[in-house]
Amino acid sequence: MKKIEVFAPSTVANVACGFDVLGFAMEGIGDTISISKTSTVGISIEHGKGCKGIPTNPQKNVIGVAVNALLESLAYTEKAGFRFKVSKNVKPGSGLGSSASSSSAAVFGVNELLGNPYTKRDLIKFAMKGEEAASGLPHADNVAPSLLGGFTLVRSYEPLDVVSLTYPESLYTTVVHPQIEVKTSDSKKILKRKVDLRDAITQWGNVGGLVAGLAQSDFGLIGRSLQDVIAEPTRSMLIPLFKEAKEAAFKEGALGASISGSGPSIFALSFSRKIAESIAIAFNNVYASNNILAHVYISRINPIGAEILS
Amino acid sequence: MKKIEVFAPSTVANVACGFDVLGFAMEGIGDTISISKTSTVGISIEHGKGCKGIPTNPQKNVIGVAVNALLESLAYTEKAGFRFKVSKNVKPGSGLGSSASSSSAAVFGVNELLGNPYTKRDLIKFAMKGEEAASGLPHADNVAPSLLGGFTLVRSYEPLDVVSLTYPESLYTTVVHPQIEVKTSDSKKILKRKVDLRDAITQWGNVGGLVAGLAQSDFGLIGRSLQDVIAEPTRSMLIPLFKEAKEAAFKEGALGASISGSGPSIFALSFSRKIAESIAIAFNNVYASNNILAHVYISRINPIGAEILS
Repeated sequence: MKKIEVFAPSTVANVACGFDVLGFAMEGIGDTISISKTSTVGISIEHGKGCKGIPTNPQKNVIGVAVNALLESLAYTEKAGFRFKVSKNVKPGSGLGSSASSSSAAVFGVNELLGNPYTKRDLIKFAMKGEEAASGLPHADNVAPSLLGGFTLVRSYEPLDVVSLTYPESLYTTVVHPQIEVKTSDSKKILKRKVDLRDAITQWGNVGGLVAGLAQSDFGLIGRSLQDVIAEPTRSMLIPLFKEAKEAAFKEGALGASISGSGPSIFALSFSRKIAESIAIAFNNVYASNNILAHVYISRINPIGAEILS
Repeated sequence: MKKIEVFAPSTVANVACGFDVLGFAMEGIGDTISISKTSTVGISIEHGKGCKGIPTNPQKNVIGVAVNALLESLAYTEKAGFRFKVSKNVKPGSGLGSSASSSSAAVFGVNELLGNPYTKRDLIKFAMKGEEAASGLPHADNVAPSLLGGFTLVRSYEPLDVVSLTYPESLYTTVVHPQIEVKTSDSKKILKRKVDLRDAITQWGNVGGLVAGLAQSDFGLIGRSLQDVIAEPTRSMLIPLFKEAKEAAFKEGALGASISGSGPSIFALSFSRKIAESIAIAFNNVYASNNILAHVYISRINPIGAEILS
């Protein structure tokens, strides 16, 4: 195989209570990458749709960093290289794991071209190198669901332990992405490094409740558990109309709503496409009536993750 | 009905990662209470086996406090009272929820004598009043499993939300109770009121992992998740031979081991009775070889909780 086209989905990390540990994959949005094996050694990156502002230098682009980590691990010495053409339908700084989609799609595609020396799960650690290049920290809460699909829990980083959670198939998400940029680094800065034990207990009660609710298809419990007392209270200040959007989602029957990743996107979960669609209209209204451009997405939880398109 | 004999089991709270939120019920050990409806108004408490040092004054005994909360809630005005005869096979200050077993058995039995105006789940809030009398805080992590049985998660206190978790039937616990007393109040004092965000994230990753592992009957995941970076590092200092006992349990194949409640009891979990029995021998050896009297218990997770004996 000399050429492949792959897709890795956008992802919602944190999922209210699960700061730095929970995430799920979306359907229909993410990164599409065409990868060609070339006779020239090295990595070259070409930008298609939606890549404005992203460096093409492979040392500075998450694709280059992640793929090089994969090739190094294989002690790859073939006199060949890889050319990537990237197309994004969600721009960077969305809170929907844009860099994770790139890293995940790239390592997934190269692994395919090399005859699958690694499993998808193995690839997480290489994609994490891309995350490290993008934000300074080797997070897995976006790359895990982007690669594996579904709802994932990063139980531990040392050693890396990613759990695929059981969840009800009828779970839908509605995401609104107000077209303003919140840098992950800014959003990290406003978090306190010490938290009250009481708040921490509240948070892990909710993580336990959410995981149990997903496993038992108990939508009421899922909804009650979608609370964040750690990041949302401060981070939501960086997102215009956060409170209004959240309230609008609840009014339409959302199980819960919170910040996607470090924002500014906001996600809601619901138990039917019909409710998800009503929330989409409500999200649109909140931003349109305040003259803020916003994109809205409706999706099931994507059960597949990274996949071959052609 | 004029008389009833009820049992409410001992419980292991916290369960490593789930400080203040997780707990499970044991089989075979706990409180047995005979309750008689009397023609004299008021509550009287008589002590049987294992009640040394516990006040019989109903204002100061958790039974009196919990049952009065139940009767008040019912606006009980019948010219009758209740006499309790209590028998314990685990003494107070064990870390096995001794006060919770008393409160739970008492409200469960009185509720039965009154024709079950409340469900078991409703009774949690009354038993919590007993916990408040015993330790100053209305905890539910022992009373919830003692009443409901199984593995429980207190997702939230305000409002109270107790989740019965799904767990594998072949899960066994081995508990060693070194015969020294650690007061819950002392054990609370040595906890920090602020925790590092990194530690909190580790803890909620493990809570998520444990709940997922229990739901998926993934014993490996259960084991990896049984870690406590919040309470165990400091509280274990109050327990003689904690490290040795924990290591001995792992050597016999325990999935994990940690402090039961606020100690000094230590619990281990394993996936077969055979391993649970080997751990019991190992626990015994650790304490016997250091001349510390210790009681050891082996039990499945008790699926029933509070029950009528006769």
